[in-house]
Amino acid sequence: MTNLFFNPVKVFSGRGCVGEYPWKSHGKKCMIVCGSHSARLCGALDDVRDALTAQNIKFIIFDRVEQNPTVETCKEAGDIAREDKVDFIIGIGGGSPLDAAKAAAYFAPNPHLTVETLYDGECKSDPLPVIAIPTTAGTGSEVTQYSVLTCRRIENKKTLKTPKIFPVAALLDAEYTVTLPQSITNATAVDALCHAVEGYLSKGANPVSDALAEKAMFYVGRSLRSLIEGRLDFALRERLLLGSMLAGMVISVTGTCFVHSFGYPFTYFEGLSHGEANACFLPDFAEYTARVAEDKVMRVYRLCGVKTHEEFRSLIERAVPCDWKFDRDAVMKYSRIGGGGGSVNKGLYEPTADDIYNMYKKYII
Amino acid sequence: MTNLFFNPVKVFSGRGCVGEYPWKSHGKKCMIVCGSHSARLCGALDDVRDALTAQNIKFIIFDRVEQNPTVETCKEAGDIAREDKVDFIIGIGGGSPLDAAKAAAYFAPNPHLTVETLYDGECKSDPLPVIAIPTTAGTGSEVTQYSVLTCRRIENKKTLKTPKIFPVAALLDAEYTVTLPQSITNATAVDALCHAVEGYLSKGANPVSDALAEKAMFYVGRSLRSLIEGRLDFALRERLLLGSMLAGMVISVTGTCFVHSFGYPFTYFEGLSHGEANACFLPDFAEYTARVAEDKVMRVYRLCGVKTHEEFRSLIERAVPCDWKFDRDAVMKYSRIGGGGGSVNKGLYEPTADDIYNMYKKYII
Repeated sequence: MTNLFFNPVKVFSGRGCVGEYPWKSHGKKCMIVCGSHSARLCGALDDVRDALTAQNIKFIIFDRVEQNPTVETCKEAGDIAREDKVDFIIGIGGGSPLDAAKAAAYFAPNPHLTVETLYDGECKSDPLPVIAIPTTAGTGSEVTQYSVLTCRRIENKKTLKTPKIFPVAALLDAEYTVTLPQSITNATAVDALCHAVEGYLSKGANPVSDALAEKAMFYVGRSLRSLIEGRLDFALRERLLLGSMLAGMVISVTGTCFVHSFGYPFTYFEGLSHGEANACFLPDFAEYTARVAEDKVMRVYRLCGVKTHEEFRSLIERAVPCDWKFDRDAVMKYSRIGGGGGSVNKGLYEPTADDIYNMYKKYII
Repeated sequence: MTNLFFNPVKVFSGRGCVGEYPWKSHGKKCMIVCGSHSARLCGALDDVRDALTAQNIKFIIFDRVEQNPTVETCKEAGDIAREDKVDFIIGIGGGSPLDAAKAAAYFAPNPHLTVETLYDGECKSDPLPVIAIPTTAGTGSEVTQYSVLTCRRIENKKTLKTPKIFPVAALLDAEYTVTLPQSITNATAVDALCHAVEGYLSKGANPVSDALAEKAMFYVGRSLRSLIEGRLDFALRERLLLGSMLAGMVISVTGTCFVHSFGYPFTYFEGLSHGEANACFLPDFAEYTARVAEDKVMRVYRLCGVKTHEEFRSLIERAVPCDWKFDRDAVMKYSRIGGGGGSVNKGLYEPTADDIYNMYKKYII
């Protein structure tokens, strides 16, 4: 029995959608989960506050989500949500706040769960409803059942994965991405492209995920070319946000592959952004996969508007810096951690130990 | 605010999926809703009975769903479901039993609703969960929030539309379509193609529905060519069933356009099957729409493997008879009823009264 598709998120889009959304349908009190800066800077936090006030909904704000949020932070947010008896949670931000909002919603009605038992403990009560408002076009978290958290115990990221944490709604307003610096726009776009490409070249791909992936690659891949050429307008931002959401739907079916596994240690230990870390391995992923599925890789390239491995690599490297160099011992450690990730063999091509070494070694000083 | 996508159905596929499905998760007693013959003939009813028995679930069978089921029949099934205190409903069949199952599930916990108040009355209690098992590749009802019922009062079909009647799960096993005669296979395939094309050329189309529509047109349109050429094997049946489901997802976003509106009276008064009735207007729909959206219509044709209006028309007419002739007065009546349907102006091209007359007049004796 193949699970072809399941994605229960109500997806809305358009300028001003936060103001039009029927927040009242979820209750009388909520918690807003966000980081300390960008949700304010982009205007989303103000819009949400205005909308809640207009609909007579009380709210508290948890704005202490760090980049690559820890399980500890999410537990804390969940505890506050429970103590303050909120009915629902609104996540505003890039992947970090959205993933934190989902984990906090999971912790909130389950006080027996601890930082140690989050991943394996029983979910006795359904999580609080989460409404996700992405402010970057990359994560796709607004339509996935994943919450990727930093887990100090294993010195890596680890994903909480359960259909219970699908947001109930995603509100896509590209206005909130306008204030992003170009470097973040590019890095998050590459992250979205990774989701689409990894999902498309995954063993778990099926015709539904492929339909969504093809559209996502077209939107994001072509937009990446425009970004590099300096053509960045509102219409492009809308296409990126849409493509990013579509790519999120893709990985809700397929999960990710080794690009994500390999990249996580670069983020955990070296502080690369998620998009930058993924960019380091995306061209290799496509090239290795072409050994077993050349046609499908060529379709990826066509959809992105390039023709060859070299052109695709150049597209990624021009969008995001990929010339990082680290100490040999460090890179060897990262390759062990990344190469041991759960998604390494999910792709159509399963990398050998040699392949993994070869992909990491170019990052040795 | 645009509603980009919402489809909460869990879609499973594969040979034997009925046996693997965790029926117990829905309760201890269910009602199977089907027609009098095909659910038995195709093996689906036996498979469902075996699966329920193996999982210790009691069941009753309501097998009196007629072609183009009436509201009365659905009310009766809903009354029985309530009296027998079933926890969930399994629909097995083509569009008629699936739509009847959804309406019965809606009636069951709402005894205040009558044949007269179904469409406008308040839904006080959530419908029973429905699991849909399509035995034709055409309806897409397994993934929609629609139940199209025959409504004697208005001498036409009328659609119950509410997100509350999305099935909770759809189980796609192409094995159940193997016993279909070729004429029904073709007519239902054309119905599926209509869903994809009408959704793609609808004002309500968006990038998510377009992604699904393009894949659906590719699967169904190309398969139609194979069907006409007499190449009908299991792989093709799987592609048709998948394409039909994808096309159902499309109309769950967009709804249908005038092809469906115009076709309903041919079914109601003349007994044409739903696919045959739709075939009568699909080529016209594409041609008229090309006046305002030629590029998009040409993409439809490319995906179906044809190049011109003539080739597309020929594809449809070779798949399904379209040379019906009826009495002038009757056709004029059908054109008034069909031309007054709620979906007539949902397409990118809005037909004038003359257009409508011209499309119907070729069916005058």
